Amino acid sequence: DDVVDHSDDEFWAKEPYRDKRLIIKTAKPFNAEIPPKLQVEHFNTPNELFYVRQHMPVPDINENEHKLTVTIVGKTTKVKEFTLKDLRKFKPVSVNAALMCAGNRRSEMNKVKPVKGLSWTTGAISNAEWSGVLLRDVLLHCGLDTENIDDKHVILTGADTDATGTQFSTSLPLRDALDTVLLATHMNGAPLPPDHGRPLRAVAPGAPAVRSVKWLQSITISTEESSSHWHQRDYRSFNPSTTWETADFPTAPPVYSLPVTSAICDPEDGETVTVEDGHIEVRGYAYSGGGARVLRVDVSADGGASWRAARLRQHAAPPARHFAWTLWSARLPLAGAPAQVEIWVKATDSNFNTQPEKFNDIWNIRGILSNAYHKIKVNLKY
Amino acid sequence: DDVVDHSDDEFWAKEPYRDKRLIIKTAKPFNAEIPPKLQVEHFNTPNELFYVRQHMPVPDINENEHKLTVTIVGKTTKVKEFTLKDLRKFKPVSVNAALMCAGNRRSEMNKVKPVKGLSWTTGAISNAEWSGVLLRDVLLHCGLDTENIDDKHVILTGADTDATGTQFSTSLPLRDALDTVLLATHMNGAPLPPDHGRPLRAVAPGAPAVRSVKWLQSITISTEESSSHWHQRDYRSFNPSTTWETADFPTAPPVYSLPVTSAICDPEDGETVTVEDGHIEVRGYAYSGGGARVLRVDVSADGGASWRAARLRQHAAPPARHFAWTLWSARLPLAGAPAQVEIWVKATDSNFNTQPEKFNDIWNIRGILSNAYHKIKVNLKY
Ligand SMILES: [Mo]
Ligand SMILES: [Mo]
Repeated sequence: DDVVDHSDDEFWAKEPYRDKRLIIKTAKPFNAEIPPKLQVEHFNTPNELFYVRQHMPVPDINENEHKLTVTIVGKTTKVKEFTLKDLRKFKPVSVNAALMCAGNRRSEMNKVKPVKGLSWTTGAISNAEWSGVLLRDVLLHCGLDTENIDDKHVILTGADTDATGTQFSTSLPLRDALDTVLLATHMNGAPLPPDHGRPLRAVAPGAPAVRSVKWLQSITISTEESSSHWHQRDYRSFNPSTTWETADFPTAPPVYSLPVTSAICDPEDGETVTVEDGHIEVRGYAYSGGGARVLRVDVSADGGASWRAARLRQHAAPPARHFAWTLWSARLPLAGAPAQVEIWVKATDSNFNTQPEKFNDIWNIRGILSNAYHKIKVNLKY
Repeated sequence: DDVVDHSDDEFWAKEPYRDKRLIIKTAKPFNAEIPPKLQVEHFNTPNELFYVRQHMPVPDINENEHKLTVTIVGKTTKVKEFTLKDLRKFKPVSVNAALMCAGNRRSEMNKVKPVKGLSWTTGAISNAEWSGVLLRDVLLHCGLDTENIDDKHVILTGADTDATGTQFSTSLPLRDALDTVLLATHMNGAPLPPDHGRPLRAVAPGAPAVRSVKWLQSITISTEESSSHWHQRDYRSFNPSTTWETADFPTAPPVYSLPVTSAICDPEDGETVTVEDGHIEVRGYAYSGGGARVLRVDVSADGGASWRAARLRQHAAPPARHFAWTLWSARLPLAGAPAQVEIWVKATDSNFNTQPEKFNDIWNIRGILSNAYHKIKVNLKY
């Protein structure tokens, strides 16, 4: 992934404390999953258990001095600076939203054919109540012309910096961002932890988490997308026949939303489960990007010959404005008394999209958007 | 489908003239597909070739006398009537949108296991430029309180009537409808033909066509969904294990959007195609509901072992506001010189949802939302 050598220890000297229950995928930069059973324990993931996805070291920011620069590029370019105190003058808003890495469940796609990227299992998604102010309100205050938004982008730049001094940056289409993006200072009622962007983070509900830029330092409204490596050379969509040699990044669609997905979190693959009264209890999550709401989660213990609709635990937000994940549970009947069973899960969202059964036809070089049925095998005890 | 006996000839005496090229599925009520090759001939389907889906006879309406009644149910219920002349005082708007029957491609799902409904092939979708006024503007004029819209519905009732005198009716969530619904008087620049709702039709872009109520006579804003048979006992989503005996219609999600789909229109299944220079030309459509835009169409001639991205012909509307279909074409390379080839197509939309490969796991008693890969076999000539 990384194009720059980050091996200097000095560079990583200020990393924050992390909860020991997180499952570390890489230490520098810090990338860690939440364990599956803890994932389904809480609708809003406790801050210390929220999965962590970093590209660089965590910047050490003095909240009282932090400034957000907003630039609206145009005939006469407008620039304004905001302290956190300035931002608090805007109307406070909250949104309940899951953030999911576009690479969540990459390890399953990797089994079809190797892909490049962090080997995430199902733990690169968590859910929180985010609080702050609306990007829209701040941009209107800065004099944004809301008549001409269709070919514009919001470039978001963080304070995290690689060894060459390049800051993390990506962008979103302005139209999407005006509808949904929060400038968040709080997560589940507490100030953002350092790993999640203290003191200020963009939260782009329904989009891959990479667009929710942490340690937010500047916002630029432009006719151009972000020119950063992370935006131009990553998080783009390709078909299974595209190779690293044939991939044409500039014309490939940037990933600004996420397809419907689901996972079984409890039991875990390979566990031994006690059968009670011919049934086993199964729990997990489901999620769909772009504001879609999960409408149904179906679970099968017979390779899709029969499906049982799970009980859903959901946020109240309506379809098209639904950004939270869905937790689900099912009491699954077993035929006979097998020693082992394979469990499948698939979800249907409010656009009635479902998941593909297999990864083959959604396979892509970067291993993103890996949303086929989740299938696990468990051993049974009677 | 029909619960009422419509066999009386008198009842059907005023049916309009229909283009002879339409492929009739049922004569009374008139249901007809557009032939596949004509489907891809025009981005905006000529009005006379637009597929037709009726539940009852076409009502014969005098435009000059037609009135739309708008009722906002509340502590003090508000009622207003509009002639077509009154409606013309609102700001004129147009939207380019495909309308697709929720049962489009039912015949393919039916092959897995029989379903109930009209045996549509791939021809129950067409595209048009619709013109009229915004439902939103009319409701604001009628004093709609836009603060409390989340648990409300827009009940749309047509002038079409069954043999017992019951008028066709269905509803949409108010939040969705305020964003998108048009009260249309024109289709591709001409007054609506009788088969498409003359003189006034609701057009609900991104929703199954059944919500785009023709011969619109009344609009009611209510905390209740439509109580009609068509709304309560049809167009709801079930999993493959739900039977007519176990189906619980009141708790099943009404279908208000449509998943991503695609079809090959030229050649047709079973046709003989000439191979030129080791390639064949393939054309078709793709579509996704809820405002999603099709981002890529992939075609395979080797059972998914390799995929070729098609050229796309699209409307300019951005994702989340994209309601038109996409026409596509591909020059597909063939390995060797086979006598027959199976061609597969699948589309990916702006939420990165894709189609399931097979119908098995999306099968449902009513045969709706039938969006697996379209697969055809053609004979090859050299
Ligand atoms: Mo990510
Ligand atoms: Mo339909």
